[in-house]
Amino acid sequence: MEPMIAPVAIVLHSPRIAQNAGAVGRVCAATGVPLHIIRPVPFRLDDKALRRAGMDYWPHVDLRIHDSFIDFAEVASGRLWLFTTRGKRSHIDASYEAGDYLFFGNEPHGVPDEVRAAIPPEQHLRIPMPGPAGRSLNLATSVAVGLYEAMRCLNALP
Amino acid sequence: MEPMIAPVAIVLHSPRIAQNAGAVGRVCAATGVPLHIIRPVPFRLDDKALRRAGMDYWPHVDLRIHDSFIDFAEVASGRLWLFTTRGKRSHIDASYEAGDYLFFGNEPHGVPDEVRAAIPPEQHLRIPMPGPAGRSLNLATSVAVGLYEAMRCLNALP
Repeated sequence: MEPMIAPVAIVLHSPRIAQNAGAVGRVCAATGVPLHIIRPVPFRLDDKALRRAGMDYWPHVDLRIHDSFIDFAEVASGRLWLFTTRGKRSHIDASYEAGDYLFFGNEPHGVPDEVRAAIPPEQHLRIPMPGPAGRSLNLATSVAVGLYEAMRCLNALP
Repeated sequence: MEPMIAPVAIVLHSPRIAQNAGAVGRVCAATGVPLHIIRPVPFRLDDKALRRAGMDYWPHVDLRIHDSFIDFAEVASGRLWLFTTRGKRSHIDASYEAGDYLFFGNEPHGVPDEVRAAIPPEQHLRIPMPGPAGRSLNLATSVAVGLYEAMRCLNALP
């Protein structure tokens, strides 16, 4: 079998809650896209700890750890799309390209100001939520919605 | 404000786990689509019980309870799209119309054979999962991915 070339990758900036990061890992394992995690992270990221937490799909996650946003940015070769409730542009209006990164902050803080400032405003995307509940979708759900749309745009869904 | 007309609705057939149904409710509250739940359900569906479980968005869910699939089918006026890992058609190839229902079984059993048989095979959809983990997306994630795609197709995302 040819090794799969992932169309895009997911980035989590400083996730705070292991279960949420684990749920994002499950989405990445189901779709075959790499998961970049930028430290600091207040939980252990090794297989053993996460498998013990019921995440037995974790070994299937193509995980890449970075010590800081700067470290990540040095190796990132595609554009970053920042998913944020403050984004002006809908995620379905983005022009995704192969190699892009879908970038997510943590719950509930999002990303630090310096990270937000480093990503051009036209690459700040929001997932529309026209319903009555002000509360946003959870992290893994947002990742899945954003990722499936990008993969659809890139003809990466078999 | 005009009352919003929901483009589609979500249906859960006999959900088994309160937290999963709650997570689906959160997706429905964020998007403003009705949530139909078909009994039997082994947990309480009242606001008080679910809010106590941390689901404080539950009052925002437009919830409709049905005693059986037959009862639901009698009042359902649109087509049913059954989301199933055994579906032959990708969910991005469906021809959604306003008033359709996105229909989901429970974890891990899906829907009973008689329900499956009642929905035409060309309306059985799968969410593609090209990744290495055989394990499927969780229920709320699948609902969100299916729902956002249907809403996109129906120009229902602001």
